[in-house]
Amino acid sequence: MLSKNQIKLIKSLSQKKNRQQLGLFTVEGVKGINEFLNSDFRLENLFTTKLIFDAPNHQIAEISDAELKKISTLKSPNTALAIFKIPKSISPQNGGLILALDDVRDPGNLGTIIRLCDWYGVKDLVCSINTVDCYNSKVVQATMGSLARVNVIYLDLKVYLESSKASVFGTFMDGENIYNSNLPIEGIVILGNEANGISEAISSKVDRRITIPQFGKNQSTESLNVANATAIILSEFKRRTTTEM
Amino acid sequence: MLSKNQIKLIKSLSQKKNRQQLGLFTVEGVKGINEFLNSDFRLENLFTTKLIFDAPNHQIAEISDAELKKISTLKSPNTALAIFKIPKSISPQNGGLILALDDVRDPGNLGTIIRLCDWYGVKDLVCSINTVDCYNSKVVQATMGSLARVNVIYLDLKVYLESSKASVFGTFMDGENIYNSNLPIEGIVILGNEANGISEAISSKVDRRITIPQFGKNQSTESLNVANATAIILSEFKRRTTTEM
Repeated sequence: MLSKNQIKLIKSLSQKKNRQQLGLFTVEGVKGINEFLNSDFRLENLFTTKLIFDAPNHQIAEISDAELKKISTLKSPNTALAIFKIPKSISPQNGGLILALDDVRDPGNLGTIIRLCDWYGVKDLVCSINTVDCYNSKVVQATMGSLARVNVIYLDLKVYLESSKASVFGTFMDGENIYNSNLPIEGIVILGNEANGISEAISSKVDRRITIPQFGKNQSTESLNVANATAIILSEFKRRTTTEM
Repeated sequence: MLSKNQIKLIKSLSQKKNRQQLGLFTVEGVKGINEFLNSDFRLENLFTTKLIFDAPNHQIAEISDAELKKISTLKSPNTALAIFKIPKSISPQNGGLILALDDVRDPGNLGTIIRLCDWYGVKDLVCSINTVDCYNSKVVQATMGSLARVNVIYLDLKVYLESSKASVFGTFMDGENIYNSNLPIEGIVILGNEANGISEAISSKVDRRITIPQFGKNQSTESLNVANATAIILSEFKRRTTTEM
């Protein structure tokens, strides 16, 4: 059974200000919830139509399909919805490849970028303050559980880049051809906003401008989707380390 | 002014069966419409709030913002909606790299895959019959105009692969490491369905199984998003030709 207050609480978590105030966010679906249960994230409550989860009894409530539909943000709710605590932000580690996002706004893009970080072993994802919130339910859904394994940090990107000693790479239309570039194992790579790319303030902090060359003849495609560009760039940085696997 | 019949016609094009029966589809937004006007696609009608398009007068109708809102599929309609004729399907050319999709279902994924084909100079995109229709308005929107430059062909994928002489590559979790593989300039590369990957019937037609290796330590990410996997694979095939650019 769900109380009115529980329904109200869960629905309130669709808004960023409430998530931040309460320090809570929601995860839906069996696979996603299990990824978070098997991580360092701390469960607050689990509402499920089937008792199939490995979690403390006092945190699990069995609910009906109709109740799940009331609290789900999905068109086709999938078995369960869990509330987890938002962890304290951890500063990015030194060393390794760090991905930085300058105002990426689309939840689906951020979600698949987090999934890419997980795939390519990028531990830290640094986001400008205006990047979409990673605890937005659409982002959580699109990460397919990868959010449980990637450290996402929101900060003043300009201040962070100024204080960092690592080489800063930025993706532009007019940079050096990424396929012919020497790329290091360590560094910070910045991807920009869907419509405007990397802002001027951040551009001034870039040490090396890189580009994914276009192979089509008419060269009129405006740009790649930011998640696809991230995929290609992480692939390029990481494939050069493939002999070390 | 829009007539009731025009509104009815435009709205009917949101359904695949109507698009196929009438041989028409819609494009929204200034940039997308201009890409199609500058291509071999043939305009049927253009409804716009601003007379800024280079098209024959008798095909242009000026409409109000309120009228545009009535016919648009977008939350924030952008200036114009055009109806174009669906072109006759052209058989895939021999030679070059051909991308094949085995039941990709998400419109956003197909849209960004078409954009990737355009970027990487892949002229032919072969789709199984159950792949989402490329004239679906969400797909058209996600291609950002690239659909005007990529030949998308729907066919019986198994029959096509049986009749083709090109090497057939398939993406699997257990294939050879794509970073260490010799990849040819010509060939057919198959990407599978979002949930199930490449079907058994199609798998049996694959000559070489390839995989994008995972770099994360815990190796629990299930898979990459199909559009991101396409980005990485096209990048790998094409970068090896980069000296020829």
